[in-house]
Amino acid sequence: MTAPIPQSRLRGDRVTMAHGGGGKAMADLISEIFTDVFQPPGSEDQARLTAAALAEPGAQLALTTDSFVVSPPVFPGGDIGKIAVCGTVNDLAVGGAKPLWLSAAFIIEEGCEFALLRRIVASMQAEAEAAGVRIVTGDTKVVERGAADKVFVTTSGVGVIPPGRDMQASRIRPGDVALVNGVLGDHGATILAARGDMALSTDIRSDCQSLNGLIEAVLDAAPGTRAARDATRGGLASALNEMAAAAGVAIEIDETALPLRAEVRGVCEVLGLDPLYLANEGTLVLFVPEEEADAALSAMRAHPAGAGAALIGKAKDGPAGRVTMTTLFGGQRLVDRLVGEQLPRIC
Amino acid sequence: MTAPIPQSRLRGDRVTMAHGGGGKAMADLISEIFTDVFQPPGSEDQARLTAAALAEPGAQLALTTDSFVVSPPVFPGGDIGKIAVCGTVNDLAVGGAKPLWLSAAFIIEEGCEFALLRRIVASMQAEAEAAGVRIVTGDTKVVERGAADKVFVTTSGVGVIPPGRDMQASRIRPGDVALVNGVLGDHGATILAARGDMALSTDIRSDCQSLNGLIEAVLDAAPGTRAARDATRGGLASALNEMAAAAGVAIEIDETALPLRAEVRGVCEVLGLDPLYLANEGTLVLFVPEEEADAALSAMRAHPAGAGAALIGKAKDGPAGRVTMTTLFGGQRLVDRLVGEQLPRIC
Repeated sequence: MTAPIPQSRLRGDRVTMAHGGGGKAMADLISEIFTDVFQPPGSEDQARLTAAALAEPGAQLALTTDSFVVSPPVFPGGDIGKIAVCGTVNDLAVGGAKPLWLSAAFIIEEGCEFALLRRIVASMQAEAEAAGVRIVTGDTKVVERGAADKVFVTTSGVGVIPPGRDMQASRIRPGDVALVNGVLGDHGATILAARGDMALSTDIRSDCQSLNGLIEAVLDAAPGTRAARDATRGGLASALNEMAAAAGVAIEIDETALPLRAEVRGVCEVLGLDPLYLANEGTLVLFVPEEEADAALSAMRAHPAGAGAALIGKAKDGPAGRVTMTTLFGGQRLVDRLVGEQLPRIC
Repeated sequence: MTAPIPQSRLRGDRVTMAHGGGGKAMADLISEIFTDVFQPPGSEDQARLTAAALAEPGAQLALTTDSFVVSPPVFPGGDIGKIAVCGTVNDLAVGGAKPLWLSAAFIIEEGCEFALLRRIVASMQAEAEAAGVRIVTGDTKVVERGAADKVFVTTSGVGVIPPGRDMQASRIRPGDVALVNGVLGDHGATILAARGDMALSTDIRSDCQSLNGLIEAVLDAAPGTRAARDATRGGLASALNEMAAAAGVAIEIDETALPLRAEVRGVCEVLGLDPLYLANEGTLVLFVPEEEADAALSAMRAHPAGAGAALIGKAKDGPAGRVTMTTLFGGQRLVDRLVGEQLPRIC
């Protein structure tokens, strides 16, 4: 992916405190590891941007931010860099914004290997290109050994919500149906397995992917789409609880309809975890009016990020914020908000 | 500053891993500590914003980001929250942008006291109000004890550069004069003293302040202003070196003209530090055409953030990027870029 670096000015193979000191070493770190890849516009410490879409009457600017602290920083299907781009692109996209520009701030532990940083940066650039966004500005800080864990990445994203578009959970109405774009829990199960302390060996890979293209395809096919959420920390259950509460509706899902890999189901059974709460990084749930359900599903299935799309439930009249599931055995189960933690540092 | 909190849902007085898990505890942490104070618009995980200024033909959007890892997180004159707002406001303002909106992402170490978080958040809100910006979206992550140092804050900022405004270092021409708004090195000396391991006792306080109001005042009085830089990590010397390199000019400053407190000079002498490299968090250097120097200086001195303004040097023909200083004794000294680190975790 990256060309060989001729005559690096970086000495050794690890970050030292001097790389955070504001002097020559920092300038070398920033240029060789970061800006040579991201190629931000201009030379000032701010990106200057124009987009015709932003000037359209009625357009809104969307701004999001997320810090990423996932451990380990490299895992099957991605790394902390890929997730830092996907996560922020998706936070913009689920609100109906077209992502345009990202910032990236790195908190680096003394001793972090240059090779890890290069890998992360290459992943970020590749994913940004895939998602059609640009990483336009950034920052680096170095902290002493033991004051951080290798590297944390914070991305912020700016996008444009086209005039007239209004996706928010409060618009969900009884009768709307809930769709997901694919299998649940792959990211959470992957991170668990990657930590190695569970002696799990699986072929599961993180679902980490940008969803802006998929969402635009759904909106073209089903313009009445009410709202979307990426089912990250806290999983599908948390996303549904938030949406039910915001809309003041009840939501009922059907366990038989949930797309779930056998391996993920297995990992959950072994460890006593509930896949409804497992984190995803490329899986969303969206609500559409029932009459647009087929159109939305077809659009999703025609998109690479939605091949496993499924209708999993619906909104209904009932106690506001209540989420229930019809189980495999035909019973009813409350799908409550997560209490406590399931998996630390999942994203 | 903050009203007593009735019936807190937060148990105990410290952050636990559950506060990062995506469930009820996290929702309580976010609402009680963060959103009750920042009051972000809307309920989606993205801020939706409109500004007439953005839609003006020729206006540019400016985007910046900075992570803050200052240690200790509370120090005379400020804390990591205040600095996280000032720093990003200033990064926007020195490029000629009017700051509008900030995002704030928190990486919190397990065990961090709620009281510290509340203090930081109150400082951020107070400084945002003082600077006329809004903190509109955010994120929290919790990492296990030892994987971070109390709390790191990453802010990103969005601002608007009015049509026709173009502040950048490459516009500096030989003959332009260099102005600073006040004394140098207070922030760096304050952090050094606050660390306590130097047995320094001083009354110095960080200069941490937002500079957007000052910069607008200068631009009104001296519309030809070429460029500005806040002299943060690496101090005045680093800012001047960057500017000289970007403009392809030499810069000469006069040591007798540098505003410097006796206490800061004293700290530097004791510790063998050079105040030119000490970090500032509310001090900037700007270049104006010589004929606008008086107007710019008067405007600065009339502003609370510029009472100690001084003309410290000028740009001239000479080796591109070379910064020199006429010393107190009349000699000439090279003011090179910092090699290695001076003070880790200064911001």
